[in-house]
Amino acid sequence: MDVDEKYFNNISQRERAIFEGGITMGALFHQFDGTPVNLKSVESLENAIKEAMELQPCVDKVDVIINREMLEDIENKFDYTSLNGNMLDVRVVSVYRDSKSVIRMKFIEELDYPLMYLEEVE
Amino acid sequence: MDVDEKYFNNISQRERAIFEGGITMGALFHQFDGTPVNLKSVESLENAIKEAMELQPCVDKVDVIINREMLEDIENKFDYTSLNGNMLDVRVVSVYRDSKSVIRMKFIEELDYPLMYLEEVE
Amino acid sequence: MDVDEKYFNNISQRERAIFEGGITMGALFHQFDGTPVNLKSVESLENAIKEAMELQPCVDKVDVIINREMLEDIENKFDYTSLNGNMLDVRVVSVYRDSKSVIRMKFIEELDYPLMYLEEVE
Amino acid sequence: MDVDEKYFNNISQRERAIFEGGITMGALFHQFDGTPVNLKSVESLENAIKEAMELQPCVDKVDVIINREMLEDIENKFDYTSLNGNMLDVRVVSVYRDSKSVIRMKFIEELDYPLMYLEEVE
Repeated sequence: MDVDEKYFNNISQRERAIFEGGITMGALFHQFDGTPVNLKSVESLENAIKEAMELQPCVDKVDVIINREMLEDIENKFDYTSLNGNMLDVRVVSVYRDSKSVIRMKFIEELDYPLMYLEEVE
Repeated sequence: MDVDEKYFNNISQRERAIFEGGITMGALFHQFDGTPVNLKSVESLENAIKEAMELQPCVDKVDVIINREMLEDIENKFDYTSLNGNMLDVRVVSVYRDSKSVIRMKFIEELDYPLMYLEEVE
Repeated sequence: MDVDEKYFNNISQRERAIFEGGITMGALFHQFDGTPVNLKSVESLENAIKEAMELQPCVDKVDVIINREMLEDIENKFDYTSLNGNMLDVRVVSVYRDSKSVIRMKFIEELDYPLMYLEEVE
Repeated sequence: MDVDEKYFNNISQRERAIFEGGITMGALFHQFDGTPVNLKSVESLENAIKEAMELQPCVDKVDVIINREMLEDIENKFDYTSLNGNMLDVRVVSVYRDSKSVIRMKFIEELDYPLMYLEEVE
């Protein structure tokens, strides 16, 4: 079966890249939100998020930065916190044939919300 | 701040609906995958998934059906299983201004995979 | 196979209730943390958490309250937030034969942390 | 505040180790279940799970093995699958003062279920 022909012939190449990139960003947030994290473990978590999410369809590259300042501010006696979306700065590059999208998620202070949007789209 | 003007002026209305619908479908899968479920609890889970995911930006309606046959087949002695994507049949309707997308996720036997695709797009 | 005899004969009935209750509390937190929620959806989420987690081995009853005040304080323009552990007040009653444990999770202000502990143990 | 004195004086040292180990095992399963994984990414995921879960209270050591044979069997065209509990073999060592517990989770074929139990308890 040609999946692209059968299931995706109603959208353009550009729309396909946008769609798959959006799926991956939503997936990333909700899979890893809540994971215990501190300055010691943060790098292994960033790396696992990157490698896991790069497996998704049409995803070419994922870069994840977890905010170190927010980890330095942990004040509870247990010395770690739960990952939340406000700590994440992520870029997902999705490619379908000749079209490429760069999806960004970052915390926008004015919105008090981790916004997902298209940083680049071709 | 006009979020749409500032962050989304590089994509069309139709692309925006596709993008937001994709995010929500990825989020839904990865938030609820793994939840304990059986025939007794399944309706409350479908309902919570629906109500939670309808809160996402541009999402107008979410319909979730969890496969009862797969729940009837549970054979372990604990009488429940973990929700996995293969059990899910979901429709997410996302709307941005005059554009509407219907995103579908369902298990495709030939692919052995729960595929996400655009069932309708205007 | 007698699971209890084969796998649990090295702990007391009381310890078994404590063990299973602890598992369920850890599971609950990490399954649902990150779920979109607001005042409109909160009841369906509480109900789904309760019904899902009551399926776990030895778990007799789960009561979940999500903090409404924290939901009233949502100030972003999207009118919902992500569930986090600080919003949760949960009681898990686990029973094994003659032993009963009541596990509690609640946010402790002094600790700035959602603590899990034994509220009652018999 | 002395947390141990205030919240945990109703259980023994041994029970505390069992309780905290159980929490961590439940948390681990439900945090990471559903993560995209294949043979290429599996090591980074095992490592992140280990480092994240070792942050939990009283947890001394976590060892995680994801079943490679199950990853080799992936037959869908997307070349990855979602992590599920049946693929996991985990040991959590929890210590409270003089007491140590080793919690194990592994798939038990007879039960068709990933069982969590005490492998050692002192």
